[in-house]
Amino acid sequence: MNINDKLSAKAKSMKSSIIRELLVYVNEPGMISFGGGAPDPETFPRHKLSEIAGSVISDEYKSTLQYGLTEGDTELKKHYIKLLEKYDGITGINNDNLLITTGSQEALYLTGLIFGDEDSYCAASAPTYLGAVSAFSLSGAKFFGLPMTDEGMDLDMLERELENLVKKNEIHKFKFAYIVPNYMNPTGQSESMENRKKLVELAEKYDFMIIEDDPYNALRFEGEKLPSVYTMAPDRTLLLNTFSKVLSPGLRIGVIVGNKEAIRKMVIGKQALLLCSPSITQRLAARFMEKYDLIHEIRDTVKLYKAKRDTMLRALEEMFGDMEDVEWTHPKGGLFLWLKFPKNLITSEMLETAKNEKVLYIPGDSFYFDNPERNTMRLCFSLPSHEDIYEGIRRLRKVVDLHLAKIKGAKKNDLHQCV
Amino acid sequence: MNINDKLSAKAKSMKSSIIRELLVYVNEPGMISFGGGAPDPETFPRHKLSEIAGSVISDEYKSTLQYGLTEGDTELKKHYIKLLEKYDGITGINNDNLLITTGSQEALYLTGLIFGDEDSYCAASAPTYLGAVSAFSLSGAKFFGLPMTDEGMDLDMLERELENLVKKNEIHKFKFAYIVPNYMNPTGQSESMENRKKLVELAEKYDFMIIEDDPYNALRFEGEKLPSVYTMAPDRTLLLNTFSKVLSPGLRIGVIVGNKEAIRKMVIGKQALLLCSPSITQRLAARFMEKYDLIHEIRDTVKLYKAKRDTMLRALEEMFGDMEDVEWTHPKGGLFLWLKFPKNLITSEMLETAKNEKVLYIPGDSFYFDNPERNTMRLCFSLPSHEDIYEGIRRLRKVVDLHLAKIKGAKKNDLHQCV
Repeated sequence: MNINDKLSAKAKSMKSSIIRELLVYVNEPGMISFGGGAPDPETFPRHKLSEIAGSVISDEYKSTLQYGLTEGDTELKKHYIKLLEKYDGITGINNDNLLITTGSQEALYLTGLIFGDEDSYCAASAPTYLGAVSAFSLSGAKFFGLPMTDEGMDLDMLERELENLVKKNEIHKFKFAYIVPNYMNPTGQSESMENRKKLVELAEKYDFMIIEDDPYNALRFEGEKLPSVYTMAPDRTLLLNTFSKVLSPGLRIGVIVGNKEAIRKMVIGKQALLLCSPSITQRLAARFMEKYDLIHEIRDTVKLYKAKRDTMLRALEEMFGDMEDVEWTHPKGGLFLWLKFPKNLITSEMLETAKNEKVLYIPGDSFYFDNPERNTMRLCFSLPSHEDIYEGIRRLRKVVDLHLAKIKGAKKNDLHQCV
Repeated sequence: MNINDKLSAKAKSMKSSIIRELLVYVNEPGMISFGGGAPDPETFPRHKLSEIAGSVISDEYKSTLQYGLTEGDTELKKHYIKLLEKYDGITGINNDNLLITTGSQEALYLTGLIFGDEDSYCAASAPTYLGAVSAFSLSGAKFFGLPMTDEGMDLDMLERELENLVKKNEIHKFKFAYIVPNYMNPTGQSESMENRKKLVELAEKYDFMIIEDDPYNALRFEGEKLPSVYTMAPDRTLLLNTFSKVLSPGLRIGVIVGNKEAIRKMVIGKQALLLCSPSITQRLAARFMEKYDLIHEIRDTVKLYKAKRDTMLRALEEMFGDMEDVEWTHPKGGLFLWLKFPKNLITSEMLETAKNEKVLYIPGDSFYFDNPERNTMRLCFSLPSHEDIYEGIRRLRKVVDLHLAKIKGAKKNDLHQCV
């Protein structure tokens, strides 16, 4: 049968993610990948987790092998509440303010489902996190893309858009602004203190929610730790977090912190979506947190990533320092940095050359709801070794030169054909 | 802020499941629950799983603690393909025919997302599985509810509905029929061989998909094992399965078997929904299947559930045998049976009395898309002990008597007031 005849409108609109498509090439011999956004597996506390897993299954089997609560494991929540208090100064919350998800992606999908209608408006930075684009797009809501400045998202532009909605009498259709406040994916930039305050002011003035997605908070290399937007506006902020960058992505554990009414709605949505998250992985994380200080445990990981970032910045300076109209971000934490090339260099069109030269990156155009800047790319520095980072950036320069020569050649040919 | 102002139309339409609401009462001292649909935790192979978990994490950490493929763990797929071949006679499939999900609920949600539009039509038995109702309802599709007969769903009625659509020139909007072919949740009934064949004939004639949800297949107490609908129409059937009833629900592992194009679309949907399922739990299941024969391992579980069903049937006969207009199903496998009371006994209205008498059941009205038969209830026999099953059914008779007396009293009062 022809399956296409049966697909929903949403299914017809879905596109596969470029990261997924590139996965096929990552394991080719000799390939150096700045693609994915994966932690270095050598940083995972495998022996500690392995030791805990045995007893979590054999002794706590009545919970861990059975269906769990839709809201998430109460033991995990207990330890997570302590963590929020100790490291983020978030107090006064209880179980009803928390929903455990199967990774942050579920939280993003639920956010779109709970708040987004076809005629809704929302805002996010441009570029923004790819997973948010794919999750939110299915809600049908229209997103205002706010360019990134040194302060973070362009909130003056947001204010203009909000004022426009007020004039059109549609301000009630503006649902939320989505931010990744620290070392954001894909650019590695952060929201300044001033920007955080301004966003809260706007949210209060125009009455909208803030979705604060903060996976990289603990991966801080330098600079001051800024308070989360949640602490400034707990009633209208949903704070999304994950264990993927501080413990292990293989657990697929995310957390939503927010007001009880919003969490309650998300719980009901999750019933339809997943019923509940796996019990084993949640309890495993809970017992790990009971025994070890999560943030203390990743000190060496943070050092490692900082050193890898330095290697990448040095390599970029060495290989691209002489090239005009190329710039890149200098992230103070996280896993990523962002390169911007001359306008005529479309990074998605350069990918074939890159594959041939055995280096992978993510073309920037995937990180936009619309109007992508196609001369950009995301580089991830957490996974390759120092040697591979250096060699990969060297190859990248070669790829750029080859591609630019090809473009020039093509133009010449065009001219010849015209003549 | 008032969160309700920001909710999507879908969020506003969502209702919490009664099973979840009843969960609060399950742990009250002395409570006997025929609610949930949970396996007996003593049947979980906890020591075997515990032993495997340690090495799965410490030795295979590069896979198990890292992000996995959206499609699911290739090792798990390898062993699952062997299982399908050995026990279900399903051959000729490969990795591209399989998608691993985070429990069957994700598979159901993806099904609704991929195939359902606001103007779509689908069909399911009435009653049908509660999780399917909540997942499919969010797609907005209209469901034809087909009453259950001794043969399974009333397919004559389906044919009439399909003919109606042909007349209205809307037959292309009919997307799929959803069936739980074996020992279905909630009634415990099965689809006969004749019904399976007829459904395939209809699907071919009217060109629709079949969603075959088969979690209870391996929990067969007696009777012949019938071939899955998938084997009769592999091109237009999606076969949904789960490890929840044969290994552990705490793993949250489901499997979709189907044609490559449909699976591919579901993989893209899953990217937006969850990115990927947990790697640890998938590999744990894979290594368990490598070491042990899944179906062989649950022989004792099947015997235990059969004995518990027998206890429940005997207790029902003893306690309700004398009561007129009460009937119940005699399931040949699975976890559930279904009771039907006189029309005037609305089981949801009797729930308060039941809570007082310390016995819980699920009122039948939750298991319908619309037009519920409110004089029905689902009883689960897998979790309580033999003693509790007997005592619980005794209490249930008392609850029914108390409730009927209350109804009579209320009627009398009405009469008095009239006079």
